[in-house]
Amino acid sequence: MANLRVGMIGYAFMGAAHSQAWRTVNRVFDLPMQIQMAAVCGRDKEKVAAAAGRLGWESYETDWRSLINRDDIDVIDICTPGDSHAEIAIAALAAGKHVLCEKPLANTAEEARAMVAAADAAPGVAMCGYNYRRVPATTLMRDLVAQGRVGKIRHVRAVYLQDWITDPEFPLVWRLQRDKAGSGALGDIGAHIVDLTQFITGQQISGVSAVTETFIKERPLPSESSGLAASRDGGRTGHVTVDDAAVFVARLSGGAIATYEASRFATGRKNALRIEINGSLGSLVFDLERLNELEFYDATKPGPEQGFNRILVTEPEHPYLSAWWPPGHIIGYEHSFTHQARDFITAVATGTRPAPSFGDALQVQLVLDAVLRSAETGSTWTEVEPVFAAAAS
Amino acid sequence: MANLRVGMIGYAFMGAAHSQAWRTVNRVFDLPMQIQMAAVCGRDKEKVAAAAGRLGWESYETDWRSLINRDDIDVIDICTPGDSHAEIAIAALAAGKHVLCEKPLANTAEEARAMVAAADAAPGVAMCGYNYRRVPATTLMRDLVAQGRVGKIRHVRAVYLQDWITDPEFPLVWRLQRDKAGSGALGDIGAHIVDLTQFITGQQISGVSAVTETFIKERPLPSESSGLAASRDGGRTGHVTVDDAAVFVARLSGGAIATYEASRFATGRKNALRIEINGSLGSLVFDLERLNELEFYDATKPGPEQGFNRILVTEPEHPYLSAWWPPGHIIGYEHSFTHQARDFITAVATGTRPAPSFGDALQVQLVLDAVLRSAETGSTWTEVEPVFAAAAS
Amino acid sequence: MANLRVGMIGYAFMGAAHSQAWRTVNRVFDLPMQIQMAAVCGRDKEKVAAAAGRLGWESYETDWRSLINRDDIDVIDICTPGDSHAEIAIAALAAGKHVLCEKPLANTAEEARAMVAAADAAPGVAMCGYNYRRVPATTLMRDLVAQGRVGKIRHVRAVYLQDWITDPEFPLVWRLQRDKAGSGALGDIGAHIVDLTQFITGQQISGVSAVTETFIKERPLPSESSGLAASRDGGRTGHVTVDDAAVFVARLSGGAIATYEASRFATGRKNALRIEINGSLGSLVFDLERLNELEFYDATKPGPEQGFNRILVTEPEHPYLSAWWPPGHIIGYEHSFTHQARDFITAVATGTRPAPSFGDALQVQLVLDAVLRSAETGSTWTEVEPVFAAAAS
Amino acid sequence: MANLRVGMIGYAFMGAAHSQAWRTVNRVFDLPMQIQMAAVCGRDKEKVAAAAGRLGWESYETDWRSLINRDDIDVIDICTPGDSHAEIAIAALAAGKHVLCEKPLANTAEEARAMVAAADAAPGVAMCGYNYRRVPATTLMRDLVAQGRVGKIRHVRAVYLQDWITDPEFPLVWRLQRDKAGSGALGDIGAHIVDLTQFITGQQISGVSAVTETFIKERPLPSESSGLAASRDGGRTGHVTVDDAAVFVARLSGGAIATYEASRFATGRKNALRIEINGSLGSLVFDLERLNELEFYDATKPGPEQGFNRILVTEPEHPYLSAWWPPGHIIGYEHSFTHQARDFITAVATGTRPAPSFGDALQVQLVLDAVLRSAETGSTWTEVEPVFAAAAS
Repeated sequence: MANLRVGMIGYAFMGAAHSQAWRTVNRVFDLPMQIQMAAVCGRDKEKVAAAAGRLGWESYETDWRSLINRDDIDVIDICTPGDSHAEIAIAALAAGKHVLCEKPLANTAEEARAMVAAADAAPGVAMCGYNYRRVPATTLMRDLVAQGRVGKIRHVRAVYLQDWITDPEFPLVWRLQRDKAGSGALGDIGAHIVDLTQFITGQQISGVSAVTETFIKERPLPSESSGLAASRDGGRTGHVTVDDAAVFVARLSGGAIATYEASRFATGRKNALRIEINGSLGSLVFDLERLNELEFYDATKPGPEQGFNRILVTEPEHPYLSAWWPPGHIIGYEHSFTHQARDFITAVATGTRPAPSFGDALQVQLVLDAVLRSAETGSTWTEVEPVFAAAAS
Repeated sequence: MANLRVGMIGYAFMGAAHSQAWRTVNRVFDLPMQIQMAAVCGRDKEKVAAAAGRLGWESYETDWRSLINRDDIDVIDICTPGDSHAEIAIAALAAGKHVLCEKPLANTAEEARAMVAAADAAPGVAMCGYNYRRVPATTLMRDLVAQGRVGKIRHVRAVYLQDWITDPEFPLVWRLQRDKAGSGALGDIGAHIVDLTQFITGQQISGVSAVTETFIKERPLPSESSGLAASRDGGRTGHVTVDDAAVFVARLSGGAIATYEASRFATGRKNALRIEINGSLGSLVFDLERLNELEFYDATKPGPEQGFNRILVTEPEHPYLSAWWPPGHIIGYEHSFTHQARDFITAVATGTRPAPSFGDALQVQLVLDAVLRSAETGSTWTEVEPVFAAAAS
Repeated sequence: MANLRVGMIGYAFMGAAHSQAWRTVNRVFDLPMQIQMAAVCGRDKEKVAAAAGRLGWESYETDWRSLINRDDIDVIDICTPGDSHAEIAIAALAAGKHVLCEKPLANTAEEARAMVAAADAAPGVAMCGYNYRRVPATTLMRDLVAQGRVGKIRHVRAVYLQDWITDPEFPLVWRLQRDKAGSGALGDIGAHIVDLTQFITGQQISGVSAVTETFIKERPLPSESSGLAASRDGGRTGHVTVDDAAVFVARLSGGAIATYEASRFATGRKNALRIEINGSLGSLVFDLERLNELEFYDATKPGPEQGFNRILVTEPEHPYLSAWWPPGHIIGYEHSFTHQARDFITAVATGTRPAPSFGDALQVQLVLDAVLRSAETGSTWTEVEPVFAAAAS
Repeated sequence: MANLRVGMIGYAFMGAAHSQAWRTVNRVFDLPMQIQMAAVCGRDKEKVAAAAGRLGWESYETDWRSLINRDDIDVIDICTPGDSHAEIAIAALAAGKHVLCEKPLANTAEEARAMVAAADAAPGVAMCGYNYRRVPATTLMRDLVAQGRVGKIRHVRAVYLQDWITDPEFPLVWRLQRDKAGSGALGDIGAHIVDLTQFITGQQISGVSAVTETFIKERPLPSESSGLAASRDGGRTGHVTVDDAAVFVARLSGGAIATYEASRFATGRKNALRIEINGSLGSLVFDLERLNELEFYDATKPGPEQGFNRILVTEPEHPYLSAWWPPGHIIGYEHSFTHQARDFITAVATGTRPAPSFGDALQVQLVLDAVLRSAETGSTWTEVEPVFAAAAS
């Protein structure tokens, strides 16, 4: 079996999750290629060396260009902040590598377009890391929608709620800086619900009206700008330049209307990605904090027996699950990355276009941009350009 | 004990609920006045006579003006469609009656303003029937917010979802006609979540951006225009002139941002009025389909013990509940009307201003109007004028 | 329409619930007879007079024998503690009255047998007040079982959990005295789950092995022995002579095995009557604190779509509900009594045998007796005699 | 850092879970020793070779005695059916190895006692694999109980419900044969709730009265007796010699009373290990199908704010979780094995006695034996001998 040699850039939270996936995927799934965790890359030599040991990478690099130039690397896995995605991904594709790029694809639509062009021109597989598509329950939602089980979709309501910066003393980390992160809650977690709902419904968001808010406008500077758990540095503070929360109403290309909300100020909500779809024949409800469950309301059943059916998505017939444990033995957050790795490997081995492609991820980026523009212009209705002509029909 | 003699106009769904409340309230609560169910009024003599018998009214009238002119009536309880509210309420107040008027207060802000003026000028008590304020759990939410238990409010998310007209063959009843109903889901059920969230937060909605949709634009004509369960009349159809669903983002006077949704097309959701409030110190969650429960997240507790605390709101210390059953013996939808009757009687007996006043209800009306205007102008941001000067500060 | 004139004995918690039912039943249901709340009876003249006024009874009596002898009374409704049920019910039946007797039917099987004999010999309708059979969701459970929807029943697990006497300072009220109450948690709330599971499954409990416990063996004497909210009387204490909690395993006549638990020491559980039935084709789950919901697992559906289906039992097609509110508008605890009143009136009007009959209630009594005997003999397996020959087959 | 070289016997379901744990544990936790997956052992050379490759073991053996005799192995990890545990574990301990033995410790108390003696006499660490002690939420339950947060425990109710053999055509696999498995649902899953409740409460089960049942007494023979997914072999059938389900009532050494149920016939319940503890000051509720959540009722809070508090057990302060993902990013079933591996390694490195020790596991075995004896003697009350003198005090 051929090896697929991965070089990963960045080793923080996302890097740890990806490492766990690369390490596990061939142990669980029967795949045509064998992952080799060839190298990890980061700027600080001491830290990256420690990360290589801890996360199980065979070697390390301190310059991503060196990593890209190595002949013994097939895949570049980009786990850095969004401001570096475009440059790295375009270079890696040009160097003939396959690329898995964390979401959001880029910080601006312009960068994202360049990445799409690079992917179109290059031989390598290019995929964006919207891992929540690979939760079995969300894949099952997509399948049920595609099979027509909920009929014509009328409503989408999606929230992604967290609460990790409600404390005004929480420092000004890179995720709160526009030049690094592009946007705040919107790009970090809002991007997931935009992608997921487009994936599940098979429709694009065609227009939005948005309100964003920065509740805490000034925060202490961290002693270092990396990592979430930064500490205060003296009394100096800096401006928060991204949104703490974003809410918007939207229309979808298939006629549905929708509400979206992304917030880091939803006290008590730790990772509450919730999606409800209402269609003419049924409804679907998902909650990431209970990611092994899917509620399905089937309005074609006899009236007195209709109800929200809590499916425990742990059966071997469910997406991805034949490889795991017996029914009822639940999986967790990290498994979505293992499934993503499986699908990436399959795409490379079979030469098929992976999803989400860079084009799919650009579509998300265009929605995020429209949301920001709408919010900056007093909630003006803002159309979203379709990336794929077919998508608009 | 003095009698309080009620004359009720309208005897459909709302009339039945009000009748049950008037009949029960003195049996359960110790009150300074005794309700006398003096008369019910409706245009069709045969039907109103039957209703009087079934619902327990001592007499009936077929002309609401006659009812208002009766000396043996103290209270006019208006349970008719919204297009008649203003005329009846203003006449009743002028005749020296106390008035309980079902929501929405009126079909237009102009009518509502006239009703507020009439209420201000008249000696009688004037109250609007936003009964969901009287669910013990929603009153408890308001109390906890007022006590500062959730701190500064950051987020409001409110939905009121039903699904009773998803069938395209459902007929064009009065609730689907703009001249009768004013608006569709927005005024019927959206009004409740606007009022409830303003009640709970103590803040006003200051601006909105909205999308509305009429999914089924043509429907069969009913054989008669009264009642929900109308049947088809030949092949004739008519235009639906109200919204099937309305979604909007909003800002509140205290700095929170919000999402609202009212729909009659949320398949599987029968009466899903759900409100979540996130504040700097905690959160509250309510669901009308489980109206005896309130979830309270208290972020001031030690971190590892924080969680959404499901309070079963059936303890004698909880609002309204000392009069009812032992803990855990749940109450239902209709009890909110009994509580409303209790508070109305108390207001009359003590001469205090009831809440929601006609002014409070006008504030709701101004929000509904802003939502419609925003939707009609392509989701333009639309400010809402504050009824009470203090409310804007 | 003929009047059905009711005389009720006892006016505490149960009396209040029954009064609400008698007052409401004809307003909600179309019935062949009209309830007249003729008289209420209690030993203390002042108190019973006040209760008559508050609860809406036309007259009162202080001696139950006088009540029974009144010609203008058709129905005797017994809401007294269990030690007086037999004497009153037998006399009332002998006097030609219809009888509705609160559960448990009696404090001993011997008394219960005499009551069954009296009912068999008398012309009146005799029914026992196991009101939880009249919760729409439990009736629906019975219907689904009877239709074979869960197949052959394998498991029954039933608990009824409360926590109102966990405080050792709670006084020694009549419900904690064996001579008044017969038993403790077992007879008070355990009786309900015994009756309900026999009703739902259509099977009898054929044998048990039990453990009972009295956690607090000595309690302060109440100043008066009536009512739950008694206060301490000096420092005097008395022995608790009933069980605080009872647990037992059982076999049912149809081959299922079961666990039962009744407790007043389940901290945090206020009125948690929960029943789960597992059959060869499906399962059913009920929780009285969410009495408008029923979970139904249908194992005949395609595997990946199986799940616990949360049916909101508020549709017009559901038992008892066509008379109430629109879907999703939930009902409460007290409605079970209204439904009981409806079925009692129907039985009187049509001359049919009501359920639960005194014989059904005797069957429950025999189970309770077997549980107590098993517990007193060190959890010896104890058979339960079937009341109805057919039941044993 | 020293290596800890593991040899694992058995590579089916449990072997896969253990492999995942050994592979992951050093990547996630900072530990004093480094796991080396030295060898896997199984009787069929071809299969064990394939398993070694798939699961990531460096070598394989076909004779467990050879494995035990290897000098380059420090730990023997026993993942075979229960009938071989005693022989292997005793030999491994005698050979100076550390031993991790899957549960139940043995098929009989006699074997288990011999294993305890061997563990006492040997230098190696001996631990039994009751992995559910290592779910963060169950560890947190134990901690809260130990801190006195629920006061004196009154009630334990524990079920472990599955449904994988409800189909009568499911074949007679080894888990349904007494000589291989010792018992059925009781030893397989009932053992877990016996261990977990003893762990959480710090009390022992002192006596039981039990009912067991074999609903399907005859089943098709599998073509091979290994694996759950066996197929029918012609028309031949064999006797099921273990229980399909077991229910029992129990007393605990600290005064609580309890119900237990283990079943493979609970239709719709896939892996429903649920435990509720009621104490004088509070209650705790756990459900393995939602293993990231713990409900805690704190009766010392103000009455109207009491409720079941759903703690999302994903905070860094919660047991085991500082090593994993951010709050709200849930973990799954397999993580309990990683935590078990962590604690085993720590015990070896520090020379401390691990829990559950073989003695703890013997205590579970004595309960299982008492349950079987009680069931075989018509639910006679059966005392359980305490393994540890102190435990009985």
